[in-house]
Amino acid sequence: MRQSKLFTKTIKQSPKDEVSLNAQYLIRGGFINKEIAGVYSYLPLGLRVLKKIENIIREEMNAVGGIEMKTSIMQNKEVWEKSNRWDDNVVDNWFKTKLKNGMEAGLSFTNEETYSNILKQYVNSYKDLPSYPYDFKEIFRNEVRSKSGIIRGREFYWKALYSFSKDEKEHINFYEKMKIAYKKVFDRAGIGHLTYLTFASGGTFSKYSHEFQTICEAGEDIIYINKDDYGKGLEMNPNHAAINKEIWNDYSKEIDEKEDFKKKKAIEVGNIFTLGTKFSEPFDLKYKDEKGNDRMVFMGSYGIGLGRLMGTIIEVLNDDNGIIWPDNVAPFKVHLINLMNDNKVSDKIYQNMIDSGIEVLYDDREKSTGEKFADADLIGIPYRIIVSEKTIKEDSVEVKRRDGDKIELIKIDKIIDKLKNV
Amino acid sequence: MRQSKLFTKTIKQSPKDEVSLNAQYLIRGGFINKEIAGVYSYLPLGLRVLKKIENIIREEMNAVGGIEMKTSIMQNKEVWEKSNRWDDNVVDNWFKTKLKNGMEAGLSFTNEETYSNILKQYVNSYKDLPSYPYDFKEIFRNEVRSKSGIIRGREFYWKALYSFSKDEKEHINFYEKMKIAYKKVFDRAGIGHLTYLTFASGGTFSKYSHEFQTICEAGEDIIYINKDDYGKGLEMNPNHAAINKEIWNDYSKEIDEKEDFKKKKAIEVGNIFTLGTKFSEPFDLKYKDEKGNDRMVFMGSYGIGLGRLMGTIIEVLNDDNGIIWPDNVAPFKVHLINLMNDNKVSDKIYQNMIDSGIEVLYDDREKSTGEKFADADLIGIPYRIIVSEKTIKEDSVEVKRRDGDKIELIKIDKIIDKLKNV
Repeated sequence: MRQSKLFTKTIKQSPKDEVSLNAQYLIRGGFINKEIAGVYSYLPLGLRVLKKIENIIREEMNAVGGIEMKTSIMQNKEVWEKSNRWDDNVVDNWFKTKLKNGMEAGLSFTNEETYSNILKQYVNSYKDLPSYPYDFKEIFRNEVRSKSGIIRGREFYWKALYSFSKDEKEHINFYEKMKIAYKKVFDRAGIGHLTYLTFASGGTFSKYSHEFQTICEAGEDIIYINKDDYGKGLEMNPNHAAINKEIWNDYSKEIDEKEDFKKKKAIEVGNIFTLGTKFSEPFDLKYKDEKGNDRMVFMGSYGIGLGRLMGTIIEVLNDDNGIIWPDNVAPFKVHLINLMNDNKVSDKIYQNMIDSGIEVLYDDREKSTGEKFADADLIGIPYRIIVSEKTIKEDSVEVKRRDGDKIELIKIDKIIDKLKNV
Repeated sequence: MRQSKLFTKTIKQSPKDEVSLNAQYLIRGGFINKEIAGVYSYLPLGLRVLKKIENIIREEMNAVGGIEMKTSIMQNKEVWEKSNRWDDNVVDNWFKTKLKNGMEAGLSFTNEETYSNILKQYVNSYKDLPSYPYDFKEIFRNEVRSKSGIIRGREFYWKALYSFSKDEKEHINFYEKMKIAYKKVFDRAGIGHLTYLTFASGGTFSKYSHEFQTICEAGEDIIYINKDDYGKGLEMNPNHAAINKEIWNDYSKEIDEKEDFKKKKAIEVGNIFTLGTKFSEPFDLKYKDEKGNDRMVFMGSYGIGLGRLMGTIIEVLNDDNGIIWPDNVAPFKVHLINLMNDNKVSDKIYQNMIDSGIEVLYDDREKSTGEKFADADLIGIPYRIIVSEKTIKEDSVEVKRRDGDKIELIKIDKIIDKLKNV
């Protein structure tokens, strides 16, 4: 894409009403626009990142048998009354609205009831199970405050998968698969090395649930990581997950050798829960087993907030000049920057990249070198390629990674090969 | 996908609370689930169709220079007060909700204000124009009644593009390009031959807007088509668009040879408007031209409801047994139906199709032939391939199109070639 065609522009000053680094950089870079505190529009650059994250998650969910659908945002009161979660005294962060006929409707704050209600219509027999539906959708939570940028929004884009299994054994088998799928998501998104599988408090049926926590000074959570595992991220020993603060406080007496744990601030980037029959019971979601006996479906839930993941990536991968996107989620792979007086040579390089299927943002604007470099640092695309009078004298361009200092001169006719092989 | 893994099932009886054919077939086929009247969840089959439509639209919007973003659903009162459209006496189909701090927020019912407000922050100079941002998002309209299935929902998935041009001339140039882009969308979606470009009443700046109207007995609109063009759909003479009822009533005295027009019921599947400066004025959306003079940005709007388009396709392409999807929007290209006692041969054919990148729904269930055929007719996938004892005796399968009667015997080792070349 030609940067001259991108209607957004970078902003030098940090917006005064944003305290979080992610929102500051995203707004300054033209990735998002704040509509209401905690409600953001994704501008073209921001949407590109969000779509990359979405596709990574979609591939990993499909790989474990997930089947995508798209549930509605507007929710039926009667459905949520079944589980007693319509009541504002039970769930205090609903957004609700009214139809013309006076009927109340809610805006999805999560999906357990929606999914249980849909599956109830189709599941009769053991042959119908297991099933792993999921969707991506906007979720709404009426938070009292919202000052963490896209990490904790009042409106946010969320992947939720629910597992519907015949029994606890089948459930556990899938639950373990999902741990690995989640590891792959966070590895591919570039934060696996900073992320820990963490014991958290469980649901009705299980002592523990699991959170995926990314170490970050801006985090609102506290986790305790076994010293042997510290620094390994999701490559940690799977037999000793880290521990979140709540569990730590509850069980710290039982935990041997407390001094063997490091205490760290962290952001929860994903969670997986065993729900058991907590929701299948109110929805009477049962099936006939092979002997013809009625049994309750055994459920699990698996969430990832895409905006939260995107915001976390920024919080942990940045420098004073801007964002440092990991390759897999960057809005473009290459930032091609023309510093010559005319665009002829760069136009040709740009066209070659497009023809070779390389995702490139092309700075074809009439701006100073300083402005172009500052914008490129702020936007944070992995490969910067500079075309200048100096490089062209050697039939070359300069290649530099956003996360490194090394500048490489590459012959123009070798650029595509170089980019295809990194 | 294996049909045994699809959690949805077909339903024989039409749902009693749905009067529209599209909702009846979609619910019976397991494409959608009704949450509230006018609010539907898209189940796996339904989402596949919706995504096909989305991708067609995305490709055509990108081809004319569209740039995708994702604006928020929750809307800021202050933004909509600028154009005086917050007031329920002005716009009576808002859904509104409240934040904890008492602040009101609206749910997007359209996007003019959202886009004008965003562009206002970035557009300063003639160099920043033209710009053609668009998005896909859920739109909410508080309709008094909702009984047209996914054709007129209270919540619906919508593409909106807004054009921001330097002047009327630049605008008209783009507006004409969009007519062609829309023609391509409706042609690719399989209803171009039934769809007419129609004069409708205009906005502030133009005498007319244009609607794309698909002839359909279930339509709520009336259009008048020049007899010379009748039957040509979007291949009509571009110089005489059809006329909608409102315009017809206003101008019928001026229209010569009234008897030369056919009156037809139709569904509006898309519309394009010239907005002029109606929204740029309240948002003070101006730019400096090449001489340094301030000028107002000239706007246009271009919408397509994806659910409405999907519903219209069903209303016009069906028979008594179910839906007849056009190839480009069908959830799968092939419905592979095993009628043998075991799945061995069909499993192998299925795997070959998957390996060849053919989108296939594989009926591997233990069901009667009659049930499998009825389901296939209802779901409406273009190519049905039957594997039975009879066909296997000849090393063959039966191939039949949903929209035809001809049954072809094809050798098993020629199936992939056959499907790749149709």
